[in-house]
Amino acid sequence: MFYHIKELQYHAKPAKPDPVFARQLQEVLGGQFGEISVMMQYLMQGWNARADDKYRDLLFDTGTEEIAHVEMLATMIARLLDDAPFEDQKNAYDTNPVLAAVMGGTNPQHAIVSGLGALPADAEGYPWNAKYIIASGNLLADFRANLNAESQGRLQVTRLYGMTDDPGVRDMLSFLIARDTMHQNQWVAAIRELEEREGDIVVPTTFPRSLEKQEVAYTLFNFSRGDASSKGRWANGPSMDGRGQFNYVAKPEPFAGAPKLKPAPFLYHDTPPKSMM
Amino acid sequence: MFYHIKELQYHAKPAKPDPVFARQLQEVLGGQFGEISVMMQYLMQGWNARADDKYRDLLFDTGTEEIAHVEMLATMIARLLDDAPFEDQKNAYDTNPVLAAVMGGTNPQHAIVSGLGALPADAEGYPWNAKYIIASGNLLADFRANLNAESQGRLQVTRLYGMTDDPGVRDMLSFLIARDTMHQNQWVAAIRELEEREGDIVVPTTFPRSLEKQEVAYTLFNFSRGDASSKGRWANGPSMDGRGQFNYVAKPEPFAGAPKLKPAPFLYHDTPPKSMM
Amino acid sequence: MFYHIKELQYHAKPAKPDPVFARQLQEVLGGQFGEISVMMQYLMQGWNARADDKYRDLLFDTGTEEIAHVEMLATMIARLLDDAPFEDQKNAYDTNPVLAAVMGGTNPQHAIVSGLGALPADAEGYPWNAKYIIASGNLLADFRANLNAESQGRLQVTRLYGMTDDPGVRDMLSFLIARDTMHQNQWVAAIRELEEREGDIVVPTTFPRSLEKQEVAYTLFNFSRGDASSKGRWANGPSMDGRGQFNYVAKPEPFAGAPKLKPAPFLYHDTPPKSMM
Amino acid sequence: MFYHIKELQYHAKPAKPDPVFARQLQEVLGGQFGEISVMMQYLMQGWNARADDKYRDLLFDTGTEEIAHVEMLATMIARLLDDAPFEDQKNAYDTNPVLAAVMGGTNPQHAIVSGLGALPADAEGYPWNAKYIIASGNLLADFRANLNAESQGRLQVTRLYGMTDDPGVRDMLSFLIARDTMHQNQWVAAIRELEEREGDIVVPTTFPRSLEKQEVAYTLFNFSRGDASSKGRWANGPSMDGRGQFNYVAKPEPFAGAPKLKPAPFLYHDTPPKSMM
Amino acid sequence: MFYHIKELQYHAKPAKPDPVFARQLQEVLGGQFGEISVMMQYLMQGWNARADDKYRDLLFDTGTEEIAHVEMLATMIARLLDDAPFEDQKNAYDTNPVLAAVMGGTNPQHAIVSGLGALPADAEGYPWNAKYIIASGNLLADFRANLNAESQGRLQVTRLYGMTDDPGVRDMLSFLIARDTMHQNQWVAAIRELEEREGDIVVPTTFPRSLEKQEVAYTLFNFSRGDASSKGRWANGPSMDGRGQFNYVAKPEPFAGAPKLKPAPFLYHDTPPKSMM
Amino acid sequence: MFYHIKELQYHAKPAKPDPVFARQLQEVLGGQFGEISVMMQYLMQGWNARADDKYRDLLFDTGTEEIAHVEMLATMIARLLDDAPFEDQKNAYDTNPVLAAVMGGTNPQHAIVSGLGALPADAEGYPWNAKYIIASGNLLADFRANLNAESQGRLQVTRLYGMTDDPGVRDMLSFLIARDTMHQNQWVAAIRELEEREGDIVVPTTFPRSLEKQEVAYTLFNFSRGDASSKGRWANGPSMDGRGQFNYVAKPEPFAGAPKLKPAPFLYHDTPPKSMM
Repeated sequence: MFYHIKELQYHAKPAKPDPVFARQLQEVLGGQFGEISVMMQYLMQGWNARADDKYRDLLFDTGTEEIAHVEMLATMIARLLDDAPFEDQKNAYDTNPVLAAVMGGTNPQHAIVSGLGALPADAEGYPWNAKYIIASGNLLADFRANLNAESQGRLQVTRLYGMTDDPGVRDMLSFLIARDTMHQNQWVAAIRELEEREGDIVVPTTFPRSLEKQEVAYTLFNFSRGDASSKGRWANGPSMDGRGQFNYVAKPEPFAGAPKLKPAPFLYHDTPPKSMM
Repeated sequence: MFYHIKELQYHAKPAKPDPVFARQLQEVLGGQFGEISVMMQYLMQGWNARADDKYRDLLFDTGTEEIAHVEMLATMIARLLDDAPFEDQKNAYDTNPVLAAVMGGTNPQHAIVSGLGALPADAEGYPWNAKYIIASGNLLADFRANLNAESQGRLQVTRLYGMTDDPGVRDMLSFLIARDTMHQNQWVAAIRELEEREGDIVVPTTFPRSLEKQEVAYTLFNFSRGDASSKGRWANGPSMDGRGQFNYVAKPEPFAGAPKLKPAPFLYHDTPPKSMM
Repeated sequence: MFYHIKELQYHAKPAKPDPVFARQLQEVLGGQFGEISVMMQYLMQGWNARADDKYRDLLFDTGTEEIAHVEMLATMIARLLDDAPFEDQKNAYDTNPVLAAVMGGTNPQHAIVSGLGALPADAEGYPWNAKYIIASGNLLADFRANLNAESQGRLQVTRLYGMTDDPGVRDMLSFLIARDTMHQNQWVAAIRELEEREGDIVVPTTFPRSLEKQEVAYTLFNFSRGDASSKGRWANGPSMDGRGQFNYVAKPEPFAGAPKLKPAPFLYHDTPPKSMM
Repeated sequence: MFYHIKELQYHAKPAKPDPVFARQLQEVLGGQFGEISVMMQYLMQGWNARADDKYRDLLFDTGTEEIAHVEMLATMIARLLDDAPFEDQKNAYDTNPVLAAVMGGTNPQHAIVSGLGALPADAEGYPWNAKYIIASGNLLADFRANLNAESQGRLQVTRLYGMTDDPGVRDMLSFLIARDTMHQNQWVAAIRELEEREGDIVVPTTFPRSLEKQEVAYTLFNFSRGDASSKGRWANGPSMDGRGQFNYVAKPEPFAGAPKLKPAPFLYHDTPPKSMM
Repeated sequence: MFYHIKELQYHAKPAKPDPVFARQLQEVLGGQFGEISVMMQYLMQGWNARADDKYRDLLFDTGTEEIAHVEMLATMIARLLDDAPFEDQKNAYDTNPVLAAVMGGTNPQHAIVSGLGALPADAEGYPWNAKYIIASGNLLADFRANLNAESQGRLQVTRLYGMTDDPGVRDMLSFLIARDTMHQNQWVAAIRELEEREGDIVVPTTFPRSLEKQEVAYTLFNFSRGDASSKGRWANGPSMDGRGQFNYVAKPEPFAGAPKLKPAPFLYHDTPPKSMM
Repeated sequence: MFYHIKELQYHAKPAKPDPVFARQLQEVLGGQFGEISVMMQYLMQGWNARADDKYRDLLFDTGTEEIAHVEMLATMIARLLDDAPFEDQKNAYDTNPVLAAVMGGTNPQHAIVSGLGALPADAEGYPWNAKYIIASGNLLADFRANLNAESQGRLQVTRLYGMTDDPGVRDMLSFLIARDTMHQNQWVAAIRELEEREGDIVVPTTFPRSLEKQEVAYTLFNFSRGDASSKGRWANGPSMDGRGQFNYVAKPEPFAGAPKLKPAPFLYHDTPPKSMM
């Protein structure tokens, strides 16, 4: 169960409105790796975790914090939209090229749909959807998803940091970037601990290795002409999981012949055999 | 540029048809973490990589192999659909409860849309879409995405392995599981090398740390009552990136006050001020 | 900012597992009118509300409660999936028609993707997306959206109530149904208050009526043959907003002629004029 | 069955082309609350209505009119695109900043995809989809959906009215705004009649109240710190449905304990118990 | 502008309910090539056609008829859902395996969401979306889209015909199949006429051939090992447009070298050059 | 199985960067009729083809070539993004209207998400999805889909050709346009051959004509007032398939009466009968 307080976790006030940046900032609110994604991903992983322990607590700690990040971004975007010049566009093209240029950089749904509010969408107006997230029931797999999300997320926020010089926006972004630093660190810590506990780095660690086709479990197949990749760590020496030796196949050959499918029964009205000679 | 040969990388022939499993197997063809995802992700990362080196070659080697995995799965699904009893459903409900039960487990689009062919969709008929993938321009970030994809992917394939006992299907899955073992190993190797080269584990490593809010860069905020998470590695000791000390805040307080947004201009016909008293 | 406690707002424990109902119950977790929708809709409306008052507080009270409903449903679904027979399907079709029938009613992603956890999706596996919700900046409009969401939501939950006889599930549903009763009541109360404050029922109340085409503002056009609709309240007497008289046009005629579009410039390679004679 | 005449219900001719406004106007053609939505929603509700009466007739009258509104908007957008300067962009950035600014505000798919025609999409190019609409089988629920759609729709059209000063566009919008006035009025009338006939305002009115958890059916839980919402009509006095008394809980407590999920069977390769200590 | 009559274009009454077939029949109502697709595609093409002529009239004739087909299918699906056994599922798994089997084949949203009404979705519950259709402004291109839609559509309806033996359903399908026969014929007729008028079969016919890379305009490149395709009409003799000679390249070589992309500026925090050695 | 070489099929190098055109060019990479669509469509058709013959070889030849076209477009877009001025936008609105105008025409995700790389999306940032494609199992149907795809695709590329004057871009487009010329020619050739082999032009050719409602198989119904369409080839003379005579019905009448649906059982809580009088 959740409680809300009206205060923000951190300041979310720009020095001045900027509807173009408001559109761009939507990416880290409602985009593939935005705050809605991490909020929903961590909470779903927590609710689905089939154990009651410190990992579950960590997921709820972090997922609950992310709701507050969604809140900060929504607030910031609403303020960046203050005084947005959608009304003034009527004359802009005749008299005010700079204003006209601004219009091009905005998202008109910030005027028409949300009335100067944030949208649950990305920088191109694409709505957030739940296929951005994963809660697989396997925490080692999921913590890798989390590390990825925080890596992509921090990358995007640092890019946005370089695209504005508004001190209020930068102040908030510097907070989010720091939190992503923590979150990358925490998922790395949790991943290492789980790898150690499970005694393997290959997810899932519980599938019997004898059931996989072991002869190809450590082989790099050179399917792209050129041998640059043969010089990597992944092509030589002991494998990272300590259970095999990497090897490199310069000219990979197929293991199986060309398939031939049976004709479909009449019901399906597929291409009739007489056409396939 | 690409070349195709008709032979399959590995065998893709079931011992006998099984339209229910055909539907389930779609998940690892056209689902969030299916073979189309890794194929498209690695190729896009390769094409966008702003350097010509062993990582790019590795991406093309692996991405090109994944097209062959898509091919194997499509072939397997088509064969699992041989003799699918869609025509026989007409009487099944009266005379053949087992057949009726089978119908419930199938995807009717395998009959109506593809005429006994594979669909570019997941086990629930949801079509593959490109928001499943990422090519960010930052290879350390992207290799983490790749490690995540191979972890979720191998997890799903091992689950499917346990849900069938068809020796032909299991043979193919044992090949795919082994390749995912290799791919997890190779992305781990590449990640470690990049972390070493870049001298940091926090993506992006190039953003000046002085610009992030350093006081919160290593803090775990306890937003979910209960202190189980305080006992984790992530709450104590040196941070994983070696640049700070983890710390734990048992009762997190907001850094900012409650926000108050300005009323919107008349144009937007938002709630009028007189209604907001 | 938000805080979480581990306790659930209400019990979420079925008397026994039921993977078929788990799939069906997904509708009110991640469907068009499920709990994720109301949670996200109320929170977004609260964050975007351009005033600091009792409506905003009401939105946060209710939005925060809805996170707890998401939590309850996720927990319930996970428990309904305990002991799901995905492993046993291997022999079901030969030996156990009832089990085979069960398989047809399940969502295989509950096995393959989430490992017996809830999915952020509906009863047909379609993922939640943010186009389900609206935060328009106009609270009268949005409270109507909320009343609609609670009406559709309660309707769906009562249908599900009739589709199960598990006392644990019914107990939880009886709680959710009651909360939807409250929420319908509260949005009706808030709507009536706003209508009174704004002195109109036509949203937005602030657009000058003189600017709309007043001659057609209270007319019912009979575009579907048959005059049953002419007998409704909407076709006669004073309009509901008290500003006009409803009237009925039995044989509606167009106000404008047939349009003729100009040919497109050469650039677009539209159908060339010579083809359009 | 339907018949078409070539004449438009109302004029749809701008005074002059404006490709930027063409993009913005797409919102009320193919957006979440655009004319395609109401057209499809009313028709589907009519086709699914399990009775042959005045409501059904009203749905077809209005749904059929909405096809004509889609037609008017498509025509208007095509005309706003006449003479769109996509060809001239080649030099715009060197010689004509105003033209360059215009390009930013346009939707390039109006050139590339539709060749100066309207698109079945919104102002950000997102395609219309059928999850925007509902036909639930319960007309009271659905008429609330309709009232919401007409409220959001009229709000959006009035915003667009303020963003243009083209007299031809404004003339058409003044017609659409007036029709939305009628449609809000008619759905209010129909809602009130149904509420009266059914003797309740809580949808569905047919679910036995004794089966819901009555102790929480009229309670406002204060989940967001601050008591502003306690002063609303929804927190005191008789409930709007006349069947209870609103009450306010200042410090809501959970009704249930913290859940603990069972470990998953081996098949799913969820996090192994040994990792969850 | 449109008018509606309550009568159906053709009968839409099954001999008896069949909720499993109701789900399957959704494909040709709301699927990729269902009736909503052709209805919306023809109407949009008509509205966007930049000429007032017989093609436009043909599009409106056919598009308007398709609304009536949507109506027939919605009606049929509602009737197939009469008496659907969702309530009885409570005991089915214990006592009635056939009923349990039926449940697996149904779409639970037919109970929960639409209350026994049709859904604007396909056989897997995926909602109709406007990316299924095209109105390009070029009628020759679009009539090919229409011919494709009617070909896929008729194929799907004939498959469904073979999956039922309900005489009422088959009667309606036999009507739809015949109409698709007409529509394929009419688009073929229109295509041939346009090809003749435009003097070419390559869309768009107006792009100057001298501006395309003529040396590769009639070449079949053999990118898939094996020379079966060299024996086709497309590899030898005069091209179908009468402007060239087909030729076959057995071993295609690249025309360009390997690309090398420039490093990205610092702003983007792409992989740093030092990592790319 | 597939092999890759690093060389491009054709040159993909612009004379100079142009981030606005980069956004526009995305349409033919990741849009509805872009190169990803044809690549995936042809490969899926090949994998699903239930015969081993020249058509299958042709599909693989062409599908494999299309991967190389995706590669060329991705490379071109990355190069058009070189030096994109996202960092400079900070001051653009004050000092550099032309730069500000450029920003409006760009896709900010090219900076934030892909770090100057191509996106698997269209010109409006909408991600590619697999509902763009079809592999039906019937090659005559599918080759019509292919002809449509190449027609729409070539149309879009020629429009883009007219929207740029960059000689490097135009050079690449002239190659793609020529290949689309070939592909239209080849699908026409294959379609004609299949029509001849199957002895009919109505897909599927295998459905017994006696089972369709023959009285309406060649009739044009005039549902849109005006008789322009009666003068077309499709309304008179022998049908294109040579099996009937086209005829024209000026005033189409319904074949069936108005439907009346049964009330739904109580479970569904649809509108109660007492409300439907």
